[in-house]
Amino acid sequence: MYNTAKVVFSPRVRKSPFFQSTMKYGAKAFTVYNHMYLPVSFENTIADYNNLLQGVQLWDVGVERQVQIKGPDATSLIQFLTPRNIKKCSVGQAMYAPLLDFQGGFLNDPVMLKLAEDFYWLSIADGDSLLWVEAIAKGYNFNVEVEEPDVSPLQVQGPNSAKLMTKVFGEWVDDLGFYRFKEVTHNGIPMVIARMGYSRELCYEIFLQDYSKGNELWEMLWQAGQELNISPGGPNIIFRLEGGILSYLADFDRTNNPYEVGLDWMIDLDQEDDFIGKEALREISQRGPTKKLMGAEIKGDPIKNSNEDYLPVLIDGKRVGTMTAMVFSPRLQKNIAYVFLKIEHAKVGQEILISNLDQSLEAVVVDLPWFERAKK
Amino acid sequence: MYNTAKVVFSPRVRKSPFFQSTMKYGAKAFTVYNHMYLPVSFENTIADYNNLLQGVQLWDVGVERQVQIKGPDATSLIQFLTPRNIKKCSVGQAMYAPLLDFQGGFLNDPVMLKLAEDFYWLSIADGDSLLWVEAIAKGYNFNVEVEEPDVSPLQVQGPNSAKLMTKVFGEWVDDLGFYRFKEVTHNGIPMVIARMGYSRELCYEIFLQDYSKGNELWEMLWQAGQELNISPGGPNIIFRLEGGILSYLADFDRTNNPYEVGLDWMIDLDQEDDFIGKEALREISQRGPTKKLMGAEIKGDPIKNSNEDYLPVLIDGKRVGTMTAMVFSPRLQKNIAYVFLKIEHAKVGQEILISNLDQSLEAVVVDLPWFERAKK
Repeated sequence: MYNTAKVVFSPRVRKSPFFQSTMKYGAKAFTVYNHMYLPVSFENTIADYNNLLQGVQLWDVGVERQVQIKGPDATSLIQFLTPRNIKKCSVGQAMYAPLLDFQGGFLNDPVMLKLAEDFYWLSIADGDSLLWVEAIAKGYNFNVEVEEPDVSPLQVQGPNSAKLMTKVFGEWVDDLGFYRFKEVTHNGIPMVIARMGYSRELCYEIFLQDYSKGNELWEMLWQAGQELNISPGGPNIIFRLEGGILSYLADFDRTNNPYEVGLDWMIDLDQEDDFIGKEALREISQRGPTKKLMGAEIKGDPIKNSNEDYLPVLIDGKRVGTMTAMVFSPRLQKNIAYVFLKIEHAKVGQEILISNLDQSLEAVVVDLPWFERAKK
Repeated sequence: MYNTAKVVFSPRVRKSPFFQSTMKYGAKAFTVYNHMYLPVSFENTIADYNNLLQGVQLWDVGVERQVQIKGPDATSLIQFLTPRNIKKCSVGQAMYAPLLDFQGGFLNDPVMLKLAEDFYWLSIADGDSLLWVEAIAKGYNFNVEVEEPDVSPLQVQGPNSAKLMTKVFGEWVDDLGFYRFKEVTHNGIPMVIARMGYSRELCYEIFLQDYSKGNELWEMLWQAGQELNISPGGPNIIFRLEGGILSYLADFDRTNNPYEVGLDWMIDLDQEDDFIGKEALREISQRGPTKKLMGAEIKGDPIKNSNEDYLPVLIDGKRVGTMTAMVFSPRLQKNIAYVFLKIEHAKVGQEILISNLDQSLEAVVVDLPWFERAKK
């Protein structure tokens, strides 16, 4: 049983500058993210996945809004907002820099782009981080300007993505390091081109800086991609799980801290600067997390549908955790899943039962991820 | 041309406690609001409207999340957050109390419920106001606890709503004043029952305080409503426009201030307390707003579809504003709309052209609303 329904298109929810193109090229299913429509399925999840692996794919991720922070206190404000030591970031570099609350729980997990010494974007997941950043800046007297600029990202994903990017924008793209970006104007379209994205495949992210040019940019890439097997797609659950990539609000939320989801590597408790949640994180690091996100492989036939709800995880009939996501991976020929488990059960090899609507699924706990980042 | 597509149901977006009931009784189209599915259409917009007028209707508005503020500084924090003079509010009373930014722009437009002298809910529109309220509380040192409690509203709408409410909960509901509420536990279900809602029809709002009891509450009302012509529905654009009710992010947003949308009556610039945006509002009140939201009546045949996008408004071929919403009102037998107009054109009787996809629509500016609040 799988519920389906229509989505309502109305002005209350914003459209990305690529919306018209995604409809033209067959977007079938949407979610809403940051008050904006996000196309997530074109043919279907598996066909979209296969299409990407056979060429290059465009993903409209205009929903990924930017919180722009500019001014003399920009660096110190962001350092106050994240446990990551962002003082090590150079201009032209991007860095994963989660925002935590005072208890160490995730408020969002943006990638930060350092555009100049006093000028940053936080490229955010679903949530009005703008409100948090602005209010913290005001209340703690940071001298900055905070706003949401006219910036809409488009991802170029897949084995042929480097070929497409160099063909359209020039050979320099080939020299772009991982999590590095460059500001360019191409055919009159201002943008920031970065080497990053929501998969472990070869991928790029184009931050369009002029809403009115969205469909023009899409068509430019689409035409150039004809000989590279280009297709439309969207953030795909199979790539996400295969690569061990987490989705904020799907896999983790404010009730989780970085130690629970394998993100403690980015916390710098030794830096001199204070940051929101520092005290709470120090305590958690000392006593250890009480639960942990792990991978799981589910036995049996290929799963047809991803889970619509969180599912209970059991050992010996007792609830020990929650499954957040599951899908069949065609490359692995396995059903793979994410499970949050009480820390004492978060061990590779642990047998678990996942309680689905009509049956229990047998599974075994494994480490994340299944796929490492693709080499160029 | 009207785009349609599917909505994806996945755990990333939350379900209300009434979700299962809304699917059971025929929810067909959804939007997403506060990271949660909101059913907006069952049969269709006009049938849902007619059904309500012929009986009583249940609306799942669980998406209306509460920001709970508790503690010794609760009143002074909320007074800092809103231009409304909330010191005049009694326990058991609700009050419309918008949140503005430092420039006087709308960040949200909650209804505030005063549950005790130091205990409030802000029942918010779409937006993570929790982040704003928490960060302001921290940064400005208010001694409060801020959280999102387990509270999910359900609206009971229509001419038979008072009959249904008294039948289920007792005669006392009949004595409930407008924007007054009472805390009750009925059949073991804890809730707050208020006389208010998103229409000018007779309506009530039940704030369910136990997520696990959502479908039980729905069924209890549904069974009792069989002889009262009960039907399922959702926030309906026809009732909204007829009643001059504004929808945050649809009709107005952060770029608007209260003077532009006829909400200046709730600003108290003379109160001693400072509040966010006070200085900006004083300036706007002195120079006057530059644009204003008005009603408009569109000539010609009944409009079949509401607008999917904002539409330009023209006078003599020049852009003078924007239409935010339009719909055919069966009761008025008129096409009605909301238009934002430059202040010099915001006059009753002004002829305007609304530029639709394939044609221009002739319209005339009128005052809001078309319908006043229904008397009991």
